[in-house]
Amino acid sequence: MIAVLKNGVTKEQAESVILWLKNQGVDVHVSEGKYQTVLGLIGDTRRIDEELLGSLEIVETVKRVSEPYKSVNRKFHPDDTIIDIGGIKIGGGNFQIIAGPCSVESREQLCGIAQEICKTGAGLLRGGAFKPRTSPYDFQGLKVEGLDLLVEAKKLTGMPIVTEIMNANHLPYFENVDVIQVGARNMQNFELLKELGKTDKIILLKRGLANTIKEWLMSAEYIMAGGNEKIILCERGIRTYETYTRNTLDLSAIPVIKELTHLPIIVDPSHATGVARYVKPMAIAAAAAGADGLMIEVHNDPSNALCDGAQSLTPAQFADVAQAVEKVRSVI
Amino acid sequence: MIAVLKNGVTKEQAESVILWLKNQGVDVHVSEGKYQTVLGLIGDTRRIDEELLGSLEIVETVKRVSEPYKSVNRKFHPDDTIIDIGGIKIGGGNFQIIAGPCSVESREQLCGIAQEICKTGAGLLRGGAFKPRTSPYDFQGLKVEGLDLLVEAKKLTGMPIVTEIMNANHLPYFENVDVIQVGARNMQNFELLKELGKTDKIILLKRGLANTIKEWLMSAEYIMAGGNEKIILCERGIRTYETYTRNTLDLSAIPVIKELTHLPIIVDPSHATGVARYVKPMAIAAAAAGADGLMIEVHNDPSNALCDGAQSLTPAQFADVAQAVEKVRSVI
Amino acid sequence: MIAVLKNGVTKEQAESVILWLKNQGVDVHVSEGKYQTVLGLIGDTRRIDEELLGSLEIVETVKRVSEPYKSVNRKFHPDDTIIDIGGIKIGGGNFQIIAGPCSVESREQLCGIAQEICKTGAGLLRGGAFKPRTSPYDFQGLKVEGLDLLVEAKKLTGMPIVTEIMNANHLPYFENVDVIQVGARNMQNFELLKELGKTDKIILLKRGLANTIKEWLMSAEYIMAGGNEKIILCERGIRTYETYTRNTLDLSAIPVIKELTHLPIIVDPSHATGVARYVKPMAIAAAAAGADGLMIEVHNDPSNALCDGAQSLTPAQFADVAQAVEKVRSVI
Amino acid sequence: MIAVLKNGVTKEQAESVILWLKNQGVDVHVSEGKYQTVLGLIGDTRRIDEELLGSLEIVETVKRVSEPYKSVNRKFHPDDTIIDIGGIKIGGGNFQIIAGPCSVESREQLCGIAQEICKTGAGLLRGGAFKPRTSPYDFQGLKVEGLDLLVEAKKLTGMPIVTEIMNANHLPYFENVDVIQVGARNMQNFELLKELGKTDKIILLKRGLANTIKEWLMSAEYIMAGGNEKIILCERGIRTYETYTRNTLDLSAIPVIKELTHLPIIVDPSHATGVARYVKPMAIAAAAAGADGLMIEVHNDPSNALCDGAQSLTPAQFADVAQAVEKVRSVI
Repeated sequence: MIAVLKNGVTKEQAESVILWLKNQGVDVHVSEGKYQTVLGLIGDTRRIDEELLGSLEIVETVKRVSEPYKSVNRKFHPDDTIIDIGGIKIGGGNFQIIAGPCSVESREQLCGIAQEICKTGAGLLRGGAFKPRTSPYDFQGLKVEGLDLLVEAKKLTGMPIVTEIMNANHLPYFENVDVIQVGARNMQNFELLKELGKTDKIILLKRGLANTIKEWLMSAEYIMAGGNEKIILCERGIRTYETYTRNTLDLSAIPVIKELTHLPIIVDPSHATGVARYVKPMAIAAAAAGADGLMIEVHNDPSNALCDGAQSLTPAQFADVAQAVEKVRSVI
Repeated sequence: MIAVLKNGVTKEQAESVILWLKNQGVDVHVSEGKYQTVLGLIGDTRRIDEELLGSLEIVETVKRVSEPYKSVNRKFHPDDTIIDIGGIKIGGGNFQIIAGPCSVESREQLCGIAQEICKTGAGLLRGGAFKPRTSPYDFQGLKVEGLDLLVEAKKLTGMPIVTEIMNANHLPYFENVDVIQVGARNMQNFELLKELGKTDKIILLKRGLANTIKEWLMSAEYIMAGGNEKIILCERGIRTYETYTRNTLDLSAIPVIKELTHLPIIVDPSHATGVARYVKPMAIAAAAAGADGLMIEVHNDPSNALCDGAQSLTPAQFADVAQAVEKVRSVI
Repeated sequence: MIAVLKNGVTKEQAESVILWLKNQGVDVHVSEGKYQTVLGLIGDTRRIDEELLGSLEIVETVKRVSEPYKSVNRKFHPDDTIIDIGGIKIGGGNFQIIAGPCSVESREQLCGIAQEICKTGAGLLRGGAFKPRTSPYDFQGLKVEGLDLLVEAKKLTGMPIVTEIMNANHLPYFENVDVIQVGARNMQNFELLKELGKTDKIILLKRGLANTIKEWLMSAEYIMAGGNEKIILCERGIRTYETYTRNTLDLSAIPVIKELTHLPIIVDPSHATGVARYVKPMAIAAAAAGADGLMIEVHNDPSNALCDGAQSLTPAQFADVAQAVEKVRSVI
Repeated sequence: MIAVLKNGVTKEQAESVILWLKNQGVDVHVSEGKYQTVLGLIGDTRRIDEELLGSLEIVETVKRVSEPYKSVNRKFHPDDTIIDIGGIKIGGGNFQIIAGPCSVESREQLCGIAQEICKTGAGLLRGGAFKPRTSPYDFQGLKVEGLDLLVEAKKLTGMPIVTEIMNANHLPYFENVDVIQVGARNMQNFELLKELGKTDKIILLKRGLANTIKEWLMSAEYIMAGGNEKIILCERGIRTYETYTRNTLDLSAIPVIKELTHLPIIVDPSHATGVARYVKPMAIAAAAAGADGLMIEVHNDPSNALCDGAQSLTPAQFADVAQAVEKVRSVI
């Protein structure tokens, strides 16, 4: 961390701030220039409050040189992390499509969809059992019964299963779940992240509605700081002023994330756009931009889906998207 | 809810969508015009997926006429809700300032601040015991020990106490807390909201980082749907592209909220701006705009605060702000 | 346009608003339901102020059914518009890359770059002569001299030229320019748009910094309303809270634009990301999402470029990007 | 400007970047630390491209220490600028309300409104003659005829007049206009700003739809760089994702602007909220936050206004707002 002192700061003032910094456990390297004094803070600067330091009377500006995240940082872990889900791999050149209905609604629905998509390109099966809904009056999911149906569908098709957790107390029910999803609204539910850090489960961490890439990586850091290194990041659109799409899909996040961290990143074009007919172009664009996978909503009967039907593809449409993605991937 | 069908829709197509809507439990009133057919949906339209309906081939547009929230809606509860915290009232013309340090750090710190501010305008004492921090390496609060110190400070000064909860499992520790705060990052932690809805505690619900007013009211609805009607809303700035302030304080939310709901609304200028010297103008502006109260960070030694020191006022600065607020309130 | 009246509105109140609407030149079709009265406004509703109507005491809600743009609307012009620039075509399946330096700096620089890129995939040459800069102290372009150099480079290579206009008074200088660019900051400079509508020049209309797709199409409508139908739209990233990239490239705008209008859309990944190493993934993603072309900054010596060097590719890097884009296009 | 080089940079690499910087006309002061080398750039660093420097292979980070604006900077002009409009003063403790209709529609309308508001608190008269409208089909203003009517109203009431310019070619028509407004959509129309910088007219510069405070000050700098120092800034709401209000009024901009520049700042609550009933609370909040004035839309018959009727007050409502503002100002 670098702090530049204002012109005309006295020696006493400078020493006072240096002492204060040293008391916070960092070494301070002083460069006295003709025009200004620059303090280089060395050591564990993660505890230094950048805004507070910048607000001091005698400080002109502060700049954090190193990122506040460590375990997720590619600098200290140059190779891509490859997540292995019972032989199905994501990251480091391995690409997977996670597909399935927004909500698990019935055995018939889930198993029907699963059997179709496993033949046409899906590597993992998704389905919501515990559903976060904006309104308390909306369908909240089949809960434990939904998890049981997912396990059944897994047995039937061999596809590993992905489903969202909303409460760390539910963890015992997730024993047979292969990948536990943290939804956008819980990206900064730090208590949940800490609990997931103590498990050995694979975590799919969605980006929050309006969170920066840095905050997203800090949330991944929460999980890794607990000892769990099996994390897949998922870009799902951010909130902007544009209303033709539900969110604005930030595909630039893909090359940025690949530069900053070794963790794999997948993209969810269904939630990002909220419109079924925009899923195909955004899915192939995500693949072209270098994503490690996709998460796509598929429903056998979108107009009767209990949630998010507007963005669901039919199994036939899914097959078409998966094929187009495959073609694009073959040339990049 | 109103759905307008496209020009040229056949009678069969119209009947098919009407049947589908009726199967979802609503009555449909059809107005056949020369140019278009308008469907008026009557009954419990909360279950109808607006986006899905709008995405159907034959539907031109959909508009929800009534708000999806009910208990928080002023239409069904025209009088202001007044929250009574052991005789200290907020709402319906009653104004309170909640003040105190961002984090509880020690008995000395907390009690010292509490004794000063209770003489200069603070009606309630705030202090964080469980702290949500972006980084896992930042100070996470004194936790239960912090709650004990808050109770001590309450005994000493008589001020009711306000502190944040991050995990419903911690509820037993909050027995002696007067007002439980839900932080911005947990505004859509629906599992937490549901649990708080089952308690009889007063809840201070902060607006999320990038949440709409409608989503905020839906989160309040989650709590009220559980039976707990004691909610105070708190505007604390929203995320925009501007960086001179930490967030953009949305004071227009005050008159909007007062129109839509009967619940009281207070404003937190400290977190909104992130800069101590902007707290005073924003505090008096909030009071002028009709807020029912304020939440202000005060620290005896901001430059050594363990968190958010850059935005904390000293007790003397707080006294000045409280006095200025009082003056403005006396004329509106 | 549909207006829904509030419950309990009297016959007299309803008649008064209907009369007022008719005075504004529209027909009103009334559907009296058991619970509410719906007014269908027919005719030229473009003159009706949607916000004002919605703010009337007795009106519950208003919804515009038809889009406020007409000439750019695909409904009235189902086929793709193909822009023909001296034989070089954009739109309707024709794809072009526009490339060149941000600013024209010298004959050597411009002609050098032009000769390289015309061999490796660029169909048109771009270069700024009149430069919009945030600071009055930044390099403002070579102006007319820059235009002359562009014409020279065109003679040398045969590539049509694209350059930005900032002032309608400069139009006489643009006689030999093939495509006139309207920059993001001038997207709602309506006086400029009107003047361009009177010319027969091809216009490249960039999306404004924080403009909606609807506003963008209304700006295109300004040009078309003047009689000029030769417009190419260019997505160049929108302003959000994220700071790792200069703007957030909104690739979902591609399928949305293709649905709403017949005009071609190209993408500028250089300005969108502001970072040279993110240009390649975003260029191929844009092509995959269905863009009709790309606009890419190329400089022979990015570190000495007079503007926007951070986002410029070298000619060798450009050749690599163009080849990758070609490969992706071959499979979609 | 400070540039921090990466760890492990060789002496040769450092010297190469230093030479390159010196060639761009700045002095470089080198501080070689044990862990990193810090370059302090001295002199006219406004020409250095911060993003480009930061993108160089061997540079870790770059931070601009001084603001890129000079004439508008309070550092070099500590006293408040007071704008004197024929004896009516704004800034430095002087507060004014500018009021009037969105558009000038007729002599009767304008003079009627003017005569009422000049008795109840308005110091200046506003009215649009040249109107920027999103749609080419909307009313575009009475143009020169409108300017003539404004001059008439000024003669009648003595109030100085404020009206918007959209095209520098129209300047000759503005001879009798006291304050020339630059609208939000033209805030970065640099050609217009340059022309206004050459005049001796008072300029009211509105903040752009989604522009940062820094960009806003840079636009003021454009005008001042031309020699015209008579500028009033006007905050009018910024674009966010919230839709209950047309824009989000950023009142925190008031204390920020007062800190950064000596220019006066006024607030337009009418355009910011877009809703007449929110104008009063936001007007008094702006006054409380320290604004130097207000700009408020008033119409004798809002429901028949040719533009923006939804946000206009009646003269009686205006009198009430002006009185409330006066009361708040008396205590701050």
